[in-house]
Amino acid sequence: MNYRMIFKVLGLLLLCLAGLMFLPLIAGLCYGENVLNFVITIVITALCALIFSSIKPRSTGIFAREGFVIVGLGWILMSMFGALPFVISGSIPNYIDAVFETVSGFTTTGATILNDIEAMPRADLFWRSFTHWIGGMGVLVFIMAVLPMSGEHSMHIMRAEVPGPTVGKLVPRARKTASILYLIYIGLTILETVLLICGGMSFYDALLHAFATAGTGGFSTRAASIGAYNSVYIEMVVATFMLLFGVNFNMYFLLLIGRIKDVFKNEELHWYLGIVAAAVLALALGITKMYGGFLTALRHAYFNVATIISTTGFCTVDFDKWPEYCKWIIVLLMFSGACAGSTGGGLKVSRIAILAKSAAREVKQMIRPRSVGRVELDGKRVDNGALRAVSVFFILYMFLLLTSTFLVSFDGLDLSTNFTASLSCLSNIGPGLSAVGPTGNFDIFSYPSKIVLSFAMLLGRLEIFPILVLFSKHTWKN
Amino acid sequence: MNYRMIFKVLGLLLLCLAGLMFLPLIAGLCYGENVLNFVITIVITALCALIFSSIKPRSTGIFAREGFVIVGLGWILMSMFGALPFVISGSIPNYIDAVFETVSGFTTTGATILNDIEAMPRADLFWRSFTHWIGGMGVLVFIMAVLPMSGEHSMHIMRAEVPGPTVGKLVPRARKTASILYLIYIGLTILETVLLICGGMSFYDALLHAFATAGTGGFSTRAASIGAYNSVYIEMVVATFMLLFGVNFNMYFLLLIGRIKDVFKNEELHWYLGIVAAAVLALALGITKMYGGFLTALRHAYFNVATIISTTGFCTVDFDKWPEYCKWIIVLLMFSGACAGSTGGGLKVSRIAILAKSAAREVKQMIRPRSVGRVELDGKRVDNGALRAVSVFFILYMFLLLTSTFLVSFDGLDLSTNFTASLSCLSNIGPGLSAVGPTGNFDIFSYPSKIVLSFAMLLGRLEIFPILVLFSKHTWKN
Repeated sequence: MNYRMIFKVLGLLLLCLAGLMFLPLIAGLCYGENVLNFVITIVITALCALIFSSIKPRSTGIFAREGFVIVGLGWILMSMFGALPFVISGSIPNYIDAVFETVSGFTTTGATILNDIEAMPRADLFWRSFTHWIGGMGVLVFIMAVLPMSGEHSMHIMRAEVPGPTVGKLVPRARKTASILYLIYIGLTILETVLLICGGMSFYDALLHAFATAGTGGFSTRAASIGAYNSVYIEMVVATFMLLFGVNFNMYFLLLIGRIKDVFKNEELHWYLGIVAAAVLALALGITKMYGGFLTALRHAYFNVATIISTTGFCTVDFDKWPEYCKWIIVLLMFSGACAGSTGGGLKVSRIAILAKSAAREVKQMIRPRSVGRVELDGKRVDNGALRAVSVFFILYMFLLLTSTFLVSFDGLDLSTNFTASLSCLSNIGPGLSAVGPTGNFDIFSYPSKIVLSFAMLLGRLEIFPILVLFSKHTWKN
Repeated sequence: MNYRMIFKVLGLLLLCLAGLMFLPLIAGLCYGENVLNFVITIVITALCALIFSSIKPRSTGIFAREGFVIVGLGWILMSMFGALPFVISGSIPNYIDAVFETVSGFTTTGATILNDIEAMPRADLFWRSFTHWIGGMGVLVFIMAVLPMSGEHSMHIMRAEVPGPTVGKLVPRARKTASILYLIYIGLTILETVLLICGGMSFYDALLHAFATAGTGGFSTRAASIGAYNSVYIEMVVATFMLLFGVNFNMYFLLLIGRIKDVFKNEELHWYLGIVAAAVLALALGITKMYGGFLTALRHAYFNVATIISTTGFCTVDFDKWPEYCKWIIVLLMFSGACAGSTGGGLKVSRIAILAKSAAREVKQMIRPRSVGRVELDGKRVDNGALRAVSVFFILYMFLLLTSTFLVSFDGLDLSTNFTASLSCLSNIGPGLSAVGPTGNFDIFSYPSKIVLSFAMLLGRLEIFPILVLFSKHTWKN
């Protein structure tokens, strides 16, 4: 294991984090707030970063193992340092609470333990929403985009940080790929900010909600979330952008270079839009009576399908009061999640498609043992290694879901709360059902449970392996 | 597809069913009851059987496809004819209710829609418990045990009906294997009956409870189940036999021929006993306060772990009132189920072991891409085909669980009820949590939900494929 190189990259990561904190600091200064908490955190983080970076690596080689360790440890460190401003300012006095909120930010979950969001300093609130934007694309991808690193090796980091069963390079060089992804990300964020300002939001609110949408996070500047604005226009803009950020970013790259046909042919996109359409229709029919008309029902169904499948977690209405089968549709969407290569979480639509096809092939082969079964996606054969990885991912996902539910159930809350809180954290959504529904709050959990759920969020965002690898004996022995 | 042969075997199956109904008929006569319902059913079933059997097959060839179709259709037919006595006698007036109860019997689930069990005619109650005993080992296995059929082909039927990832023949001939399994089954049933009589049960009650234990079914002659006897001796006998019937029957065969070492070395048995020990200890600690002492807690923990992991579903206490994390341990045991090749349901312990090992291998290979990963069970390599089948089984299991929960949620019951009712039916257990807890009843569900849950029970008992195959287009086209 190349420990020196791991320290060096972690140092770069912390330096980057310290740099990113200048933004909330500036925001605080604009509003005339006390930003000492950010000054102190930046100094501490930068100092640690310098100590780490001062280590000179003997070789710059990073392989799969180092890639996983860097990403796993990097995200834990980021959360631990990122939580400091909240503790120092006193807006979240307890460190475990602050780490939970920061993990929830970086992992783009959006589950909150805050009871009075409007009372937070604006700089802290900026930082809270900004963590979504940082975490959505991934900081290490950012580092690769701006710093000159050995291209070949950095792919191992990218593969560990970017969600989805397979990570394709858009262009031959990993660094270039990362830059293009970030440019698309910034472009869409600016577009949404502008559209929200047109809808009557202040620049501050519009920017912070755009951050949270872009990362498919879900932190809002209001306790009532998007529902606070009570505006059909804002809901439609946010819902549509949530869906857009749930699409594989490669699609936008293809659009940019004019390969529109390839976008329309993309199978994951078909499944994604199909699921959205079916869920919106089913929910709208189910809640028409509640909202006194199909159009209003359609509005709420569209927003809530978008918020759940994109794993953002903004709220407008309390779906915990919907009919039981509508609530279960929400739970099913929580499993599915968005497309691979987007900022969304969950199992990912392409994995669902691969699992479904692989099950269908197995049934066919049982009936006709001599038939040749191939699983294809986008006309290309999914090889056995990839199939196995998808199956194992699903198995681990379910195992972690059941384990997390077990661990948080020591708090004595009901099954529905424990199960959906675990699922919501693992899929990086935010709200669940029952006590953690749209009007609920994760503050009801004990500190041990908050730590369990923080790990669930990290496991979900990093797609299990980078965190699991940290606990494997094979990682640490040579 | 060899349709003629399928009809012929289904005819044999119905004939066999008609024959088996003489037992409750005799029981009814002994108690001086009106047994016209059984007479009518026997006549109808036998007539249909004769019509089916009169078809002369051109060849006796049965391949994988025919094996699945025979088992899938056979079990549905059995349930439809088996439900008739209840309807004719009026003890269960509605046919859908009667089919639910019969499916629950044959699949050894033990979920009931009956509200007043003690008011049932004794012949009907005998039949109800006897269906567990028939379904536990499988009727088609029974047919192979008693009728001369082409040995090579009948293995396809056996493979489709006997639970577990792989079906090994004990001896080279399938028919001999089936006979040995049935002899062990009968022996253990008689032993339990005797032991229960020693504990003060009447012969009738002892026999019926032994039937339900042997099949790991869970129907009782009392509304309060085993709890009605309030006897530590009876609870310990039943609990121990439930665990014994959850063990792979091959172990008993090995014991009989003196290969004791092989039994002790069996890996699935280690996992099974390990899970039982861990769960008993954890639950006993969790409920000590409730029952005012560790010993009483241990008694209830032992019985309830045995009843759930063996997927029997007898009840003594209301575990729905236990602490939340204890309830979740019960749910986890519902997933696991018993050993392959036993009469128990669920995912099966060996599948859990294979899934865990295969996930561990994947993590290892991520860290060290050039390491050679082998998944082994009992010192033998599990080949890729078997690994894939286990993964797909798990994926389908979860998919069916989520789908069933969705479909029954239209009734408007709570999430905990819907989820655990579906899980309980799919794993062939009986009780769930909340409204279907140990004091609850499946009569709360609507008729459409009862049909859904009936299919869940069949899918669980036949390990998914024989039922799924009936709905695949590949089955019916040549």
